[in-house]
Amino acid sequence: MKLLDCTLRDGGYYTNWDFDRELVKAYFDAFNNLPIDYLEIGYRSNSMNSYLGEYFYCPQYVLEDAKINSSKKLVIILNEKDVRAEHVPDLLEPCVGYITMVRIAIDPKNFKRALSLAEAVKKLGFEVGFNVMYMSNWENEKEFLGQIKEINGIVDYFYMVDSFGGVYPEDVRKTFDIVRNQTDTKIGFHGHNNLQLALVNTLTAIDCGVSIVDTTVTGMGRGAGNLQTELLLTALNGKGELDLDFNALSKVVDPFEAMQKEYGWGTNLPYMVSGANSLPQKEVMSWVTKRFYSLNSIIRALSNQSKGIEDN
Amino acid sequence: MKLLDCTLRDGGYYTNWDFDRELVKAYFDAFNNLPIDYLEIGYRSNSMNSYLGEYFYCPQYVLEDAKINSSKKLVIILNEKDVRAEHVPDLLEPCVGYITMVRIAIDPKNFKRALSLAEAVKKLGFEVGFNVMYMSNWENEKEFLGQIKEINGIVDYFYMVDSFGGVYPEDVRKTFDIVRNQTDTKIGFHGHNNLQLALVNTLTAIDCGVSIVDTTVTGMGRGAGNLQTELLLTALNGKGELDLDFNALSKVVDPFEAMQKEYGWGTNLPYMVSGANSLPQKEVMSWVTKRFYSLNSIIRALSNQSKGIEDN
Repeated sequence: MKLLDCTLRDGGYYTNWDFDRELVKAYFDAFNNLPIDYLEIGYRSNSMNSYLGEYFYCPQYVLEDAKINSSKKLVIILNEKDVRAEHVPDLLEPCVGYITMVRIAIDPKNFKRALSLAEAVKKLGFEVGFNVMYMSNWENEKEFLGQIKEINGIVDYFYMVDSFGGVYPEDVRKTFDIVRNQTDTKIGFHGHNNLQLALVNTLTAIDCGVSIVDTTVTGMGRGAGNLQTELLLTALNGKGELDLDFNALSKVVDPFEAMQKEYGWGTNLPYMVSGANSLPQKEVMSWVTKRFYSLNSIIRALSNQSKGIEDN
Repeated sequence: MKLLDCTLRDGGYYTNWDFDRELVKAYFDAFNNLPIDYLEIGYRSNSMNSYLGEYFYCPQYVLEDAKINSSKKLVIILNEKDVRAEHVPDLLEPCVGYITMVRIAIDPKNFKRALSLAEAVKKLGFEVGFNVMYMSNWENEKEFLGQIKEINGIVDYFYMVDSFGGVYPEDVRKTFDIVRNQTDTKIGFHGHNNLQLALVNTLTAIDCGVSIVDTTVTGMGRGAGNLQTELLLTALNGKGELDLDFNALSKVVDPFEAMQKEYGWGTNLPYMVSGANSLPQKEVMSWVTKRFYSLNSIIRALSNQSKGIEDN
């Protein structure tokens, strides 16, 4: 079972993918002494109109710096909605020799297109991670479920991503079984913490037999955030399943905890509501921030919308 | 199944049991519109040497104010280590007519003495809650486990308290079965959130058939804190198990969230370590705060101590 930390990639949603150089150095140093296999450092992306920082593009000097400072396998991720197979040579050839795995963030509705992208990535010799979002809605994605087996021979890790942070351990087991019935490809799990179920869901996924799970330091990540690296490591250490250098761990937790006080990631009532009802947290937050409407009316409007009911 | 909110009692560890009058009024107002059965407002205590605030003593005017402003069943708690049966008339007669349930916080080693106290409380006509601490260590408390059946006819709710925040759902099930084999008395669960397992443990306890569970607003409570009232209510609402006025809920969450920014309750690496290893979080924190020793050496020292090994 492999562990992947994606703090710089997923945490970038709060810092617009810019991180202090000293912080990144401390991050790599600490992880050199921690039992984590992969570090996902950011995106590779075609150039966008608005400003996005270093770890959204991971240019050559970022890759070199990571390779020099980290003894771990390095990972980048592609946003499938913005990247096509024909972009792969330009985007990924500079990564050869630096990056071990390329992951792809995928809407299950774009499965076929994502598979062509995965084939192009695989040809360059990378391990391929296939991060399929919205697992709490897969029951309604019959076409996607019927296609999963087409990943065989192309994808190294097929990820179940709990985008809304709304699944329970029993849902993890059920979805794992559905995927395992379709493919022998290694399975991964990426949890979100809206309902503070990221630890128990991840431990359940491990118990089911997944081959890789994701964490971020202090849970830094979009919206309510992720499973905290320090929580999974401490829990697995407490169960006697791995040795752990708590000094190294606290050296990386301390600076991110300080940033958390400023940026405030972690769950709260609107994120809990979006998790419990599989509502997009971006929309919940944008309504809540406006403070024009009561929470009851926002929740009613979004719930109706997600059921396809028009609301005024 | 009953729900009990103990924000003022358990949150008092952060404010020394003083709360702003407006905040308490907002708290009672909001809960009048929320599906919670009991509110635990504080301790009743013999007078102590150091200063402790209103909700540590709950004098007559606090009880009257609560009774006027709240439509819920009111609860106070006694610290068994500081209260004997002979103190009960002085401490509890003033509560008659205001308080529905009196809970007792109990070290399992003092079970027999606690039972005499419970009898004295029961004689005054209160419901009696028997909150037995340290459930992650009960396996080593054979004498206590053999005595549980003696609560029959005296105690209304026998609580399993996860003092270290270190139990997993499977431990909740195992302990529930042990208790149920000893007594038909209604069982309760009080979780702590060191490993962010308070929600899943509480849902597991409900699934086992407990009759009452505890929460606090924003998890406000000693150390890593409790299961958040808003999380349990939102989760049960998401499962279709109760109706919920999210406006009332956000009115009570907002002011406590503001206080949380100041006081900082919630889990962190030292609390995770104490949870995962059933170490007293008070000791972990007092060592960590000193910053003289590395986290590795603190954890080693406390682990050895809890195993009865001398350490230098």
